Parts: sequence; C-alpha cells; structure tokens
Amino acid sequence: MANVILDISTSLDGFVAGPDQTLDEPLGKGGEDLHEWAFAAASWRESHGRAGGEDNADSKVIEEALAGTGAVIMGRRMFSGGAGPWEDDANANGWWGDKPPFHVPAFVLTHHAREPLNMQGGTTFTFVTDDIEAALEQAQAAAGDKSVHLAGGATIGQQYLDAGLVEELQIHVAPVLLGDGVRLFDKLGDDRPELEITRVIASPTVTHLRYRVLKGERA
Amino acid sequence: MANVILDISTSLDGFVAGPDQTLDEPLGKGGEDLHEWAFAAASWRESHGRAGGEDNADSKVIEEALAGTGAVIMGRRMFSGGAGPWEDDANANGWWGDKPPFHVPAFVLTHHAREPLNMQGGTTFTFVTDDIEAALEQAQAAAGDKSVHLAGGATIGQQYLDAGLVEELQIHVAPVLLGDGVRLFDKLGDDRPELEITRVIASPTVTHLRYRVLKGERA
Repeated sequence: MANVILDISTSLDGFVAGPDQTLDEPLGKGGEDLHEWAFAAASWRESHGRAGGEDNADSKVIEEALAGTGAVIMGRRMFSGGAGPWEDDANANGWWGDKPPFHVPAFVLTHHAREPLNMQGGTTFTFVTDDIEAALEQAQAAAGDKSVHLAGGATIGQQYLDAGLVEELQIHVAPVLLGDGVRLFDKLGDDRPELEITRVIASPTVTHLRYRVLKGERA
Repeated sequence: MANVILDISTSLDGFVAGPDQTLDEPLGKGGEDLHEWAFAAASWRESHGRAGGEDNADSKVIEEALAGTGAVIMGRRMFSGGAGPWEDDANANGWWGDKPPFHVPAFVLTHHAREPLNMQGGTTFTFVTDDIEAALEQAQAAAGDKSVHLAGGATIGQQYLDAGLVEELQIHVAPVLLGDGVRLFDKLGDDRPELEITRVIASPTVTHLRYRVLKGERA
C-alpha cells in the first residue's frame, strides 16, 4: 500500500501560509518566502517547466519527493489558488496552468462535484466530494508502489493526521518568522501521534525534517 | 559585548510548555517530553548534579552552551517553578534546589524586589524589577566575553526578540506534538527579524537549529 506523506514548508514559527490570503497572494502576506528555497532549486524549476536553478541539497530533496510520489491529494483552495468554486470561476482549470507541476494523478477534496480534468504533463485532477478516506483510497490505488503526497493546505494535512492516516511527515522549515497566518499544526486533538525522527537534511536556506508517525503509540 | 542567545526546547508544533501548568507540573501537560533529550545527556546531568547519561551529540550541544554562557536571564515563573511571589511562598529560594544548574550569575525579571541570593555551585540570583534592557545590561556586564542566555519562559524570549535584542536563536525541536500550551512564537509584532541558518545538528532524539538574527533587515 502506498505510503502517505504530509510534505509541506513552514516558517520557523509554524505557519504554512501568511495572513490575508487573496487571489493575488494565495499564500498570504510573506507566504512566498516559505518557498524561496524551492524556487531556487533546479528540480523544482524543471517540474514547473522552468530552466535553471541550483542542483543543491534542496534540489535533491525535491527530486526524491517527485520521483517517489505516485499521487497527490490537495484541498480545493490549493487547486484553485483561492478562487471560488469553478462554477462561478473563469479559472476553471485551476491555478496551476495548462501543465501543472504534479505530473501524477491529483485528487482534489471539494464539496463541488465535477468531471476529471486531464492536463498536460501527466497531471489529472480528480474531484472527490466524498470523505478524506475515500480520497485516500483512490489516491493509493493510483499511486501503486509509490507514495501519496498530502500537498496542502494545512487543514487537509491536519484532517489526515487527526484520522491517523499519515505515515510520514516531511517538513521544510524556512528561516522565516511570519508572525501570523495559517498554522501547520493548529487543531490537533488529544489523540496526537508519537513521532520518530528519521532524517534531517540541512542546507543554508532551509532545514528538511523527516519523521515517521508511530502507529498505536499515541499520546 | 556579550552575545545574546535565546536557547529553548520546543515541540514540533511550536510549544515550549504544555497546557495546564501547575506547581506539580511547571512545564504543563507533556512539557517534560520536550526535555527528554537533555535528561539523557551526560553534560545536562552533570550540570544538575546527577551521574550517568550519554556523551552524545546532544550532550555536546549542552556542553558547548554551558561553557559559552556567562549569565542567564529568566522570568520569575522559571525561577520559582510557577509558585507565587516569594513573599507568600515557602519556596523562597526558587525551584532549583540549593545548587541550581546554571553555575553563573542569573538575572530574574520580576515585579517583586528582593535581595540577591547566592546559591551553591556558582549560581547567584539577582532580581531585576526594572525593564528588560536593564536586566540585559546587568547580565552583559556579568557575562564578560561569554554569552547571555535567555533561558525562558517564552514571554521573556518574545520580549527580547520584539525589542531587537536577540542575536542568536538556538531551538531544540523535540519530535513531539503537544497540541496546546505556551507557544515559543506567539505575539511577534510586525517588526519581525530576518534569520540566517547558521547550524543544524541532528540526533535521533532532537534537532538543534541555530540561527543568527540579522540586524537592520527586518521584515
């Protein structure tokens, strides 16, 4: 069964997006700063159809994640960049352009049913109006031997974490203090998982922390 | 002038103490878990007058911090373990026993004036009823060429950070999710500092993140 990884960038003070998210600034004020390390990486740029970038430790972390990912789950807001439901929205194909950077089947949790979207470069968007378990089942079937990547936003990750469905965390801690915004860990219940540190990769621009979620040993 | 370091352990979800702090549990529910890595370290145990422990990477980080620290600043709550003002308190010498683990001059920010306390092992407690700048001046004078260590609690660190007086952060991220409690970074103003990653030390039990606070380049 495909491994389920919550993989996300945060500020040192624990925010995955800044305050005041808008259509112009879907990551909120300062939220782009969390991803500077990725924007500079060759592998990130390649997956986004851009040239250049550095082939550094950060790039290798992204390369590894891309190679290991068989399917992605995201929230509707991440699909649309914060725009309203597509019924009312000119940007019906999402925020990611004609050739989204996922290159694998992507499952979008939403309340608004619609037909799947086949994009260029291997990304298909499937819209799941059922619960998070149903989305995970579909994603795992699509991922095969590879991992299911919980891409965001924070509430999606929290829901899967609370449900005990996350097996690994990969958290990229940017050397940034946002002060306010959307917290990665905000509404954790009493049934919090125990974690084991499995890897730390340090670079001058970000720290990649990786944890295994220990099953059946909850706090 | 002595370097000013905010040095503190946090959970992965950003808490430096758990919820429901009491006299029996001054670190709140689960708060002790943040310090398991230290309790197991030979250097921590030695500074607390205890035998044993492991001479591992974590122990070396503590050893380095102890060797480099010339003075400590803490809040009244950290001095007293959460007990009320000493006027009403049997535990007038604080929470740390006759031989506190600091072994250097310690400055306690408080609203309640009192004479200094000379403890065994080199710790002196000086009570500062003036502002945080006055406490820092005294601590820097006492520290000489060594560092001033902002020991806690979180509000003390935040006050110095907000005032632009912190030069380095050393944050020990424990692989723990507390869910609730006292946040390390909670009330940061708009004038947040820029950070530079200067060192990451990984161990199986904790990740030691070190940052330089960049002056004059605030967000």
